Amino acid sequence: MTLFVPGLIRRKRDGGTLAEAEIRELMAAYTAGSVPDYQMAAMLMAIFFRGLSDEELPWWTDAMIRSGVVLDHRAVPGAKVDKHSTGGVGDKISLPLAPAVAALGVAVPMVSGRGLGHTGGTLDKLEAIPGFRVDLPLSRAARILGELGLFMIGQTDEMVPADRMLYALRDVTGTVESIPLIASSIMSKKIAEGIDALVLDVKVGAGAFMGDLERARLLARTLIGIGRGAGLEVRALITAMDRPIGRAVGNALEVREAVDVLRGGGPPDTVELTRELGAEMAVLGGAAADLDEGRREISRVLADGSALERFGRMIEAQDGDRLICDEPGRLPAAREVALVAAPREGLVRGVDPLAVARAALEVGAGRRVKEDRVDPATGVLLCVSAGERVVTGQPLAELHHQGTGFEAALALLEQAIVIGDEPPPAAPLIIDRIHGRASGRPADRTD
Amino acid sequence: MTLFVPGLIRRKRDGGTLAEAEIRELMAAYTAGSVPDYQMAAMLMAIFFRGLSDEELPWWTDAMIRSGVVLDHRAVPGAKVDKHSTGGVGDKISLPLAPAVAALGVAVPMVSGRGLGHTGGTLDKLEAIPGFRVDLPLSRAARILGELGLFMIGQTDEMVPADRMLYALRDVTGTVESIPLIASSIMSKKIAEGIDALVLDVKVGAGAFMGDLERARLLARTLIGIGRGAGLEVRALITAMDRPIGRAVGNALEVREAVDVLRGGGPPDTVELTRELGAEMAVLGGAAADLDEGRREISRVLADGSALERFGRMIEAQDGDRLICDEPGRLPAAREVALVAAPREGLVRGVDPLAVARAALEVGAGRRVKEDRVDPATGVLLCVSAGERVVTGQPLAELHHQGTGFEAALALLEQAIVIGDEPPPAAPLIIDRIHGRASGRPADRTD
Repeated sequence: MTLFVPGLIRRKRDGGTLAEAEIRELMAAYTAGSVPDYQMAAMLMAIFFRGLSDEELPWWTDAMIRSGVVLDHRAVPGAKVDKHSTGGVGDKISLPLAPAVAALGVAVPMVSGRGLGHTGGTLDKLEAIPGFRVDLPLSRAARILGELGLFMIGQTDEMVPADRMLYALRDVTGTVESIPLIASSIMSKKIAEGIDALVLDVKVGAGAFMGDLERARLLARTLIGIGRGAGLEVRALITAMDRPIGRAVGNALEVREAVDVLRGGGPPDTVELTRELGAEMAVLGGAAADLDEGRREISRVLADGSALERFGRMIEAQDGDRLICDEPGRLPAAREVALVAAPREGLVRGVDPLAVARAALEVGAGRRVKEDRVDPATGVLLCVSAGERVVTGQPLAELHHQGTGFEAALALLEQAIVIGDEPPPAAPLIIDRIHGRASGRPADRTD
Repeated sequence: MTLFVPGLIRRKRDGGTLAEAEIRELMAAYTAGSVPDYQMAAMLMAIFFRGLSDEELPWWTDAMIRSGVVLDHRAVPGAKVDKHSTGGVGDKISLPLAPAVAALGVAVPMVSGRGLGHTGGTLDKLEAIPGFRVDLPLSRAARILGELGLFMIGQTDEMVPADRMLYALRDVTGTVESIPLIASSIMSKKIAEGIDALVLDVKVGAGAFMGDLERARLLARTLIGIGRGAGLEVRALITAMDRPIGRAVGNALEVREAVDVLRGGGPPDTVELTRELGAEMAVLGGAAADLDEGRREISRVLADGSALERFGRMIEAQDGDRLICDEPGRLPAAREVALVAAPREGLVRGVDPLAVARAALEVGAGRRVKEDRVDPATGVLLCVSAGERVVTGQPLAELHHQGTGFEAALALLEQAIVIGDEPPPAAPLIIDRIHGRASGRPADRTD
């Protein structure tokens, strides 16, 4: 086939459909450098307006995956299951979740990303553990998966290079906010992990990428459709991101909270998300007959220390300081802690996740641009959550900082926590659960 | 101002408006090479979908113009008027038109383009005249304008470099078919000629870029709007391109037809277009009080030889062989002429302009791609036009060729000329006349 790219762009632009071979050849030529960025940029913008059809989207995603290596865990017995979150504030769920599910005998080969803007990244949190390496060679990661039933690493250069190229191009061409492009980016990376099943945590609300429920549902159905097309079992929870998750926002602080959960404690919402996502993974991995059994099993391994034990062994296997599980003081700590006090008495109406995330950014806990370095020690520790009664002067939040950026951060935190007289409206954490259809076809159109 | 290009792209993508300073800075940065092609490609595709507003389009066009030099003919007294055709098959009107209008004392500084695909280009036709140079230095062109009241040259590198960059980028990114982008490309080049007024010949029909009348009218109004915004008087004729213009399609053959018109002869439709467009230019240039006087004046200079005299002097001034005006045998001629004979008797129902253009392409009279060389000698000379009665075996067309491509060309010509029993429906050559509004604002929205 001779690829005539302007013709493909025009066809997509005018609402037509690209053939499988055309998509595969386009992606191969783009990653090989023979289709220039300006043609792909025009195609991405045409896709922004026209979408990708039921048929096109799995082809597009698969063509991305084939630009690199796909992990092969067939040597590890049983189902390989992972979780992906679309990103939120204080979302450290992967840290207790992966070892808990692994403790049930389900293998979790987790490849994660870094944080950018207001959302954190699992890799940054893991790297708050002294010595922890996320850049393991794939052969070593495979060995750890065989021994412990989990690894938690970063994407390597060999995996889905097409996604890195497209992601960077979308960033500079105003084509980020496209559900098929978002969905293919997410799913290409997850499918390349060599997993059998995936649980999605699609966040919705002010602190999430998807502000409204309908778009979150559409993204979930699109992700499920791609996964099904690739032969994966995929389930999605739609969960609330109108509040931070748990109490900690900031890398070492979040590791502490994760360890609390792995010790059978931790904030109720962090525990609930871990249990709900873990139950889904347990069912998909064959470790539980139904969600109720899955919930009981997750609660069991959090309570009896077996999940924590698995977490510690993984830290050790990935060159980290396993002792942080027993001595959280070994984690990096900020030089100073400032308190935000309640300006009045009343009920906590809500905590704005974006304002908290911005406060954490101000003290260096996150990245404004990709090149920023993250300070593992800084961040925000909330002392209250929505619905709690507070008295004047009571601490609402701790700001862990190193002496810079704290004034702006404190101002943001004072705005973030709203005190009123009425209790806040009830707002469920788990908003919806989408198990998709049983067929191998995508669940829904995306355009 | 710091230019954040992805933000501008997103704003346009989401239906917002760009500010004047943003457009100017974007265009300046693009032509300077500091905004890469991939960002402009995404912007062009966003403009394809969202258009450019009444305000944005004149800014966009003016920003293009300011990327290069604008000709200055203030040393030449009187109004400077030009004509632009959106392109058709057999469209040699500029050749008799410019000298006819110049013979009325209206200066015509005509900067033309080359042919591509099924449409011919004035520069290619002029270059069929032995020795004729279209690449004159601007200083020499200005001198010729002062002496003769016209020049006919090609665009120089100094004029509207932004258009050359955008034109090439649109070609490879599927963003050609956008009325604001087409209109700004046309008008930037015409306004940069330093003219006071412009007559547009917007072609509509199978052989034109605009297939339907509504889109042709929209393009005409958009072009008028941009011109008015730049202080030009602009008028548009919408004319039929459901048939070739005149009898000749091919460069030297068209020059012969142009000379016939300049001698007071030529096919009626070529004469009619020359007279109608010339009358508009005469009025705009102050050489006629109204269109009727303009028509009479054009007829006069075609009949009395003064237009031909002007054409001959221009050829001489641009290094061409002026003697072709009297001895057309000095023009390049093809080695062979094949005839297409009428397969039956009847009435000519119509002549398909696209099929005729493709036949001319097959024998080398045009370009498939920009890099092709044009054979000035080859082409098609139609012997009949719609409505004529023919008998079996009567020649319908001559194919002038050099021994290659003629079989395919003859097959195309046999399809192109349709013989039937009924006379064809009446189809006016001049479909509409748009004089626009008197205000300085654009005539219509373009999106």
